[in-house]
Amino acid sequence: MHTAAPVPPSPDWADRTAALLEGVRARGPLVQCITNTVVQNVTANVLLALGAFAAMVDVTTEAGAFARVADALLVNTGTPHPEPRAASLEAAHAAHDAGTPWVLDPVAVGSLPVRTALARDLLALRPTVLRGNASEVLALLGGSAGGRGVDSTAGPDDARAAAVAATDGRTVGALAVSGPVDLLVAPGTGVVRVANGTPLLTRITGGGCALGAVVAAFTAVAPEDPGAAAVAATAVHTIAAELAARDAGGPGTFQPLFLDRLATLTPEDVVREARITTEPTAVSA
Amino acid sequence: MHTAAPVPPSPDWADRTAALLEGVRARGPLVQCITNTVVQNVTANVLLALGAFAAMVDVTTEAGAFARVADALLVNTGTPHPEPRAASLEAAHAAHDAGTPWVLDPVAVGSLPVRTALARDLLALRPTVLRGNASEVLALLGGSAGGRGVDSTAGPDDARAAAVAATDGRTVGALAVSGPVDLLVAPGTGVVRVANGTPLLTRITGGGCALGAVVAAFTAVAPEDPGAAAVAATAVHTIAAELAARDAGGPGTFQPLFLDRLATLTPEDVVREARITTEPTAVSA
Amino acid sequence: MHTAAPVPPSPDWADRTAALLEGVRARGPLVQCITNTVVQNVTANVLLALGAFAAMVDVTTEAGAFARVADALLVNTGTPHPEPRAASLEAAHAAHDAGTPWVLDPVAVGSLPVRTALARDLLALRPTVLRGNASEVLALLGGSAGGRGVDSTAGPDDARAAAVAATDGRTVGALAVSGPVDLLVAPGTGVVRVANGTPLLTRITGGGCALGAVVAAFTAVAPEDPGAAAVAATAVHTIAAELAARDAGGPGTFQPLFLDRLATLTPEDVVREARITTEPTAVSA
Repeated sequence: MHTAAPVPPSPDWADRTAALLEGVRARGPLVQCITNTVVQNVTANVLLALGAFAAMVDVTTEAGAFARVADALLVNTGTPHPEPRAASLEAAHAAHDAGTPWVLDPVAVGSLPVRTALARDLLALRPTVLRGNASEVLALLGGSAGGRGVDSTAGPDDARAAAVAATDGRTVGALAVSGPVDLLVAPGTGVVRVANGTPLLTRITGGGCALGAVVAAFTAVAPEDPGAAAVAATAVHTIAAELAARDAGGPGTFQPLFLDRLATLTPEDVVREARITTEPTAVSA
Repeated sequence: MHTAAPVPPSPDWADRTAALLEGVRARGPLVQCITNTVVQNVTANVLLALGAFAAMVDVTTEAGAFARVADALLVNTGTPHPEPRAASLEAAHAAHDAGTPWVLDPVAVGSLPVRTALARDLLALRPTVLRGNASEVLALLGGSAGGRGVDSTAGPDDARAAAVAATDGRTVGALAVSGPVDLLVAPGTGVVRVANGTPLLTRITGGGCALGAVVAAFTAVAPEDPGAAAVAATAVHTIAAELAARDAGGPGTFQPLFLDRLATLTPEDVVREARITTEPTAVSA
Repeated sequence: MHTAAPVPPSPDWADRTAALLEGVRARGPLVQCITNTVVQNVTANVLLALGAFAAMVDVTTEAGAFARVADALLVNTGTPHPEPRAASLEAAHAAHDAGTPWVLDPVAVGSLPVRTALARDLLALRPTVLRGNASEVLALLGGSAGGRGVDSTAGPDDARAAAVAATDGRTVGALAVSGPVDLLVAPGTGVVRVANGTPLLTRITGGGCALGAVVAAFTAVAPEDPGAAAVAATAVHTIAAELAARDAGGPGTFQPLFLDRLATLTPEDVVREARITTEPTAVSA
């Protein structure tokens, strides 16, 4: 059980996030994306706005070879057609073997059988970061049958215990559980909460899926610390969204403004806006 | 033959449209979409802006199971690859059996053989609403060989007789024929025309395809009256577009403004802007 | 070797570009697109904004039949799944046989084996225009193994000799090599450079891929002169982008403004903004 009192915003996390953002822009990591067809466009645009690069290499033969040379890999199970399904496994195997950091986003796993079986096979290849909403994380880690679709019927705290248990050194490197307040868990970081964001992220498609790609981009510059990558990626994504929402007239105008903010976000913006709290005792709780 | 004099705008239809819009927002229906890859993103965004939810479950095994629990189903034949083709039939069969309302959008049927055969198989499963342009509706219902592509070479009135004939209680529940003035036909509603809209809807991709998803969302809250759902969905879609066009600098800025308007459209906007007329004698004509 | 001194902007090319733009708008060519799933939406929107029409007919049986009646064809190898791969070859064969002008965009060819083999098979069907970045053009024409992904590690001038050699009357009709300054090569035009554009075109996905579709649209109105079509398409695309960039706050707001500019660009804009230079001796160099 978690019994720690609320912790004030951590300046260290904000500084580290700002530094990792500068690292992503300096390095320009190439992120291989095997993701659902609904969000491929916005995913690529989010990566490009961030200063990273995207390559949707999602056919067999190519996927594995590419995962060995890419800076990071994202696998999202949203539209698991036969070819990308096979390519996902091929790429995750190659990433696992080559040490390429990779992110698993098990979209809508639970009652849907094709993607659920696929996500379980992928989980066995030990993703660097597992990212999803609470229903998806619970369904994949064994705590629940999941929701009816892409929308979580559980909150991040419902997945807290399962997430902590999965950072056992054998399952995943870190977890990013999305919700009104995002929950990040890793052995090195404990439980971290990022309270930035806007409800508009749930009124556009890809608000969560694109975050998976952002996490992948950050793992490329902090492969040794997937928890820090997950925290920084989540903070950058949700701060940019929060700032964009201030100028948006609705979910339509929010989208281009969000991309603009991702491209122009400064380290000072990050430090000023970040609402990141930690619970030091969490992983052992 | 249609000989009735023009009828003034019907306040009843405007009120009913406003009420159904509020019903969609209150219920938040989950719409399963099996649609072409070109418009998947805009289709999901239109549903989310409207207050509905989208799930692109378009692989076999999953598609049928999901159609039994979804609130509505859209099947669009725009890019009929083998996997979504099989998933379409599986989902439509399940929707038919389970009573899930579903919409068929037979994109570009006529001379293109794969989608035309698919659309005919789907039509046999009695869609709740058939939505398309006049060329597509005529091609599918037997009145014409269709156009060269997605652009109609016929106007809605060319499809009027075929549409009326198809509301025979055995073919479809209702028809929505798109054009400069949209034509809606159902046994309970007769022939209804919605004169809202903007030419900009034809200068973006998905202007019509996304309407199919909006119609599906409305059938979820009025499953007993597919004609009313089709009228209300068409009016909401085209009024939002018309209002957005007033502020747009072209087809690019029109798109985000259209999504904003879908999200913020009030019942008062609907009542004030709706240009809906009826032809009471139409179905028997 | 190219030793000619820089040539001042050519008023003839600007005038010709403006005239071809008016031709595209008057004709409204229907462009069949077999392109990667990441950019299908933006590709269709760019064509519609320009005044052309898009049809993503990318399944076998349909693809070849459609290529015989379409005004132009685009084949882009970005996501070479089995079905569109087969459809690409079917369509290119049909275009070759029927005299439909067609554009090959060999996205990320080089080290990735599936698309590289496909692009070589397609090249044998003599595309009207070959469009790509320098790495892709070099990889396909035999000068290099290509880059790691979609981003060119070479500049257009690195591909100049290979491009000139490929306009031998047997390989391709014309070449469009993208870069900070685009390089266009054809027997009738020599080497032409278009210096318009904006770095924002590289910060959105589809900035280059959509240009392939624009080139296809222009070949439909100048099938006898693929070099002129390539120059005009490149100039229109990059001038619209350059004007849009002046009002954009980043890559997000750039996209809708770019579509608006494509839709509203006047012949006067083209003549005023075009920075097109020629090197008359280039092809024989």
